[in-house]
Amino acid sequence: MAKEKKAPRPKAVTPKGFRDYFGQDVSDRAEMLRKIAGVYHAYGFDALESSAVETVEALGKFLPDVDRPNEGVFAWQESEEDGKGDWLALRYDLTAPLARVYAQHRNELPTPYRRYAMGPVWRNEKPGPGRYRQFYQCDADTVGAASVAADAEICAMLADCLEEVGIARGDYLIRVNNRKVLNGVLECMGLAEDEERSAAVMRTIDKFDKVGEAGVRELLGKGRLDASGAYIDGVGLSEAQAEPVIAFLTSKGAGNGETLANLRAAVGESKVGAEGVAELEEIAALLEAQGYGPDRIVIDPSVVRGLGYYTGPVYEAELTFEILDEKGRKRQFGSVAGGGRYDDLVKRFTGQAVPATGVSVGVDRLLAALREKGRIETREVGPVVVTVMDRDRMADYQAMVGELRRAGIRAEVYLGNPKNFGNQLKYADKRQSPVAVIEGEDEKARGVVQIKDLILGAQIAESATLEEWKERPSQFEVPRADLVAKVREILDGQGA
Amino acid sequence: MAKEKKAPRPKAVTPKGFRDYFGQDVSDRAEMLRKIAGVYHAYGFDALESSAVETVEALGKFLPDVDRPNEGVFAWQESEEDGKGDWLALRYDLTAPLARVYAQHRNELPTPYRRYAMGPVWRNEKPGPGRYRQFYQCDADTVGAASVAADAEICAMLADCLEEVGIARGDYLIRVNNRKVLNGVLECMGLAEDEERSAAVMRTIDKFDKVGEAGVRELLGKGRLDASGAYIDGVGLSEAQAEPVIAFLTSKGAGNGETLANLRAAVGESKVGAEGVAELEEIAALLEAQGYGPDRIVIDPSVVRGLGYYTGPVYEAELTFEILDEKGRKRQFGSVAGGGRYDDLVKRFTGQAVPATGVSVGVDRLLAALREKGRIETREVGPVVVTVMDRDRMADYQAMVGELRRAGIRAEVYLGNPKNFGNQLKYADKRQSPVAVIEGEDEKARGVVQIKDLILGAQIAESATLEEWKERPSQFEVPRADLVAKVREILDGQGA
Repeated sequence: MAKEKKAPRPKAVTPKGFRDYFGQDVSDRAEMLRKIAGVYHAYGFDALESSAVETVEALGKFLPDVDRPNEGVFAWQESEEDGKGDWLALRYDLTAPLARVYAQHRNELPTPYRRYAMGPVWRNEKPGPGRYRQFYQCDADTVGAASVAADAEICAMLADCLEEVGIARGDYLIRVNNRKVLNGVLECMGLAEDEERSAAVMRTIDKFDKVGEAGVRELLGKGRLDASGAYIDGVGLSEAQAEPVIAFLTSKGAGNGETLANLRAAVGESKVGAEGVAELEEIAALLEAQGYGPDRIVIDPSVVRGLGYYTGPVYEAELTFEILDEKGRKRQFGSVAGGGRYDDLVKRFTGQAVPATGVSVGVDRLLAALREKGRIETREVGPVVVTVMDRDRMADYQAMVGELRRAGIRAEVYLGNPKNFGNQLKYADKRQSPVAVIEGEDEKARGVVQIKDLILGAQIAESATLEEWKERPSQFEVPRADLVAKVREILDGQGA
Repeated sequence: MAKEKKAPRPKAVTPKGFRDYFGQDVSDRAEMLRKIAGVYHAYGFDALESSAVETVEALGKFLPDVDRPNEGVFAWQESEEDGKGDWLALRYDLTAPLARVYAQHRNELPTPYRRYAMGPVWRNEKPGPGRYRQFYQCDADTVGAASVAADAEICAMLADCLEEVGIARGDYLIRVNNRKVLNGVLECMGLAEDEERSAAVMRTIDKFDKVGEAGVRELLGKGRLDASGAYIDGVGLSEAQAEPVIAFLTSKGAGNGETLANLRAAVGESKVGAEGVAELEEIAALLEAQGYGPDRIVIDPSVVRGLGYYTGPVYEAELTFEILDEKGRKRQFGSVAGGGRYDDLVKRFTGQAVPATGVSVGVDRLLAALREKGRIETREVGPVVVTVMDRDRMADYQAMVGELRRAGIRAEVYLGNPKNFGNQLKYADKRQSPVAVIEGEDEKARGVVQIKDLILGAQIAESATLEEWKERPSQFEVPRADLVAKVREILDGQGA
């Protein structure tokens, strides 16, 4: 008789572009987010946790392709008997859901509505090295406040957040720019009505970070041979025509006062430009009055990221200390948070424009920065492991971990097969345990326990001479009653 | 010329069965989960955050319907050029992903692997009142430990968690049963090989909670007329045949000793049954030795939830205090956590059976219980609101909230249009602010501020006589330098 065909075993893999987070990676992020939430809360921001799933219609941004409206998002159609179920999707950021929530609940919510949100978002993009399709965001936004005092507040709060999680003053800089100033510059150039060339100028400005002033000059003019050898067509402006853009991008002076004067010159007669400069002036004045000087938050027109998206002030937090990149070259750590004013998101739903401004913190990058600065313990410390020498005395071993835990010490009993003692020590090693506790028949009879300092033991095993080994024992016999005190002493010695 | 047809506005609604969480609901849950994570961590459990998205193949359980394998889950197909992309789905619990993670990383993970996980899960089910398609789970599992010491540990940890979050001793009871004992009972009845009738007995036992002993007797025999008037066919056992099941379900004695003796009688000569009773005995002994007596964790064979799913010990935490149900009748609060031993989940992937046991805490129910017991402040306290009397002095108002925050007091400046002062007080009311601060031109000139106790103000407005109103002012004028001290005094008086 033919053997029944077995179903093949499923593969144990995360889907492409997704990953799992283990142990300290999870706890460290939770702790960092808790600190940030504390600052947001102190500023009067309320938590919001919207559903991870939204209707594709509410998410917007993505053109509803009739067949499969999921470009960039993970989407699916609800199954309804008539085959006409709603298309649902996972949220791709925390701002689109905020707009939906505010539009839906605006009668119950206070105005202005200050809210913070933290959680995963999903992008249906091609995964690459270090690029995942699920990642954390941590946002704070103020909806319904037209005053740039709201923008200034978010910049100040961002500085407080960075310091609260462990970035020292001097190691970060928040740079502020304003889209309206750029609009003024375009107006000056006579491009305000020329949507096509305005957009081309905007795209060029976005490259300022990469190609610098000379590169932008070329790209605004005839074009440029890029590093790959390809020729990039220019916008086709004359040198004189391009000048206001260059003046704008390079207007940063020695202080905010000088920068603002340069900007005022760059926008000439433009009304919207003057409005933008006045807004920056107000932001700078508010912040300086509260003690956030240009060493922490500074007007800087070379911040161009997001200028295409936002409608007023934009801000970006950079970490200014140097790290080594993958090729061993020194470079600045760079951006960890950014945001700005966007006034049209709620209008999609209600027809009424609602002013809004907000910031998004790059959770993974900020966590990486804290590790880099040694603000987070990178060596994971596991629990104290109580080994099992006699499986009938499990209750005794459980009593030990109970005592340790009551003293605030993380501890566990070995729960695998205790037969092979070597496996128990290997386990303790894999757990990165600082201390192992041993109580065999002999110790029990004599009322003592053996306590092994596993960190010191590993150091000695690696490098010590026989003399050193004799002088610095890594295993101690103490009365059973002294278990907790001795473990505490060893942990303190390890700096744990 | 015909007007261009406008795209209709999107509807601002959560998808059916989803909801948003606001303010204190979010913070309270985060705080509760943080406390539970602290207990799990102290017991040596490591955090794991697996991706929310899994392949449908890895999730298993759901039969892969060729066309649309998403029965019960939210699933979609990856778009690949050949149209043969993987089917992906949102996780429906935290256990299936644990099995996948352990199978995938078993060479790097310690064995036993103790892990905890907390986060949302998604079910593609028909939503109903109070039933959502996204909700939180909070699990702890030990993978790779065959010893029931692992089960006992999880029961003890569960008791510690409940007390840590604020459930008093005496207000909860963890009840423990064992699937092997039931298997022994079925063996006794000669049904061990009769899969069909075993399954029918199992389904009947699952109804014990609802229909009680008499109901189970009827259902094991000829059948029963249920409350709706429908007749439910019975399993068709004789009264004598049904006796061991009844003996099992009603074997709870005055103490664990008596219960175990009753169970030993119920399983007769069955080897698996005896093994099950011995396991329960060991669990009870381990727990009692650690001080977890039957007032907290007790052997109770009437716990039947999950007996069909688990393979060894099962446990359930109930809150024993009474609440009023929606019809005003008293009833026990009921179950807030449950779990047990399941030994075959990893085998699907690797072919090797890996023993595992774990618990899942019902996050929303436990939070509701804490509110019920007054362990969580139900009155939301908003920030102190500093009003804006003179919009040119925004920096002064910002300085006030800065001082308040540095003193640990949550505070914000009103950021809406300040023109109408009444709107500012309405806003403070909507924010549930305890205190409002006012500094107009006159106050500024005299170096004072007005501080309004909004809680007292509301009480007085509601009920006070004119005399009381005069005697108990709710607004105070203090020197500007005393701002923080006076606000602190009022907050302390409010018990905030």
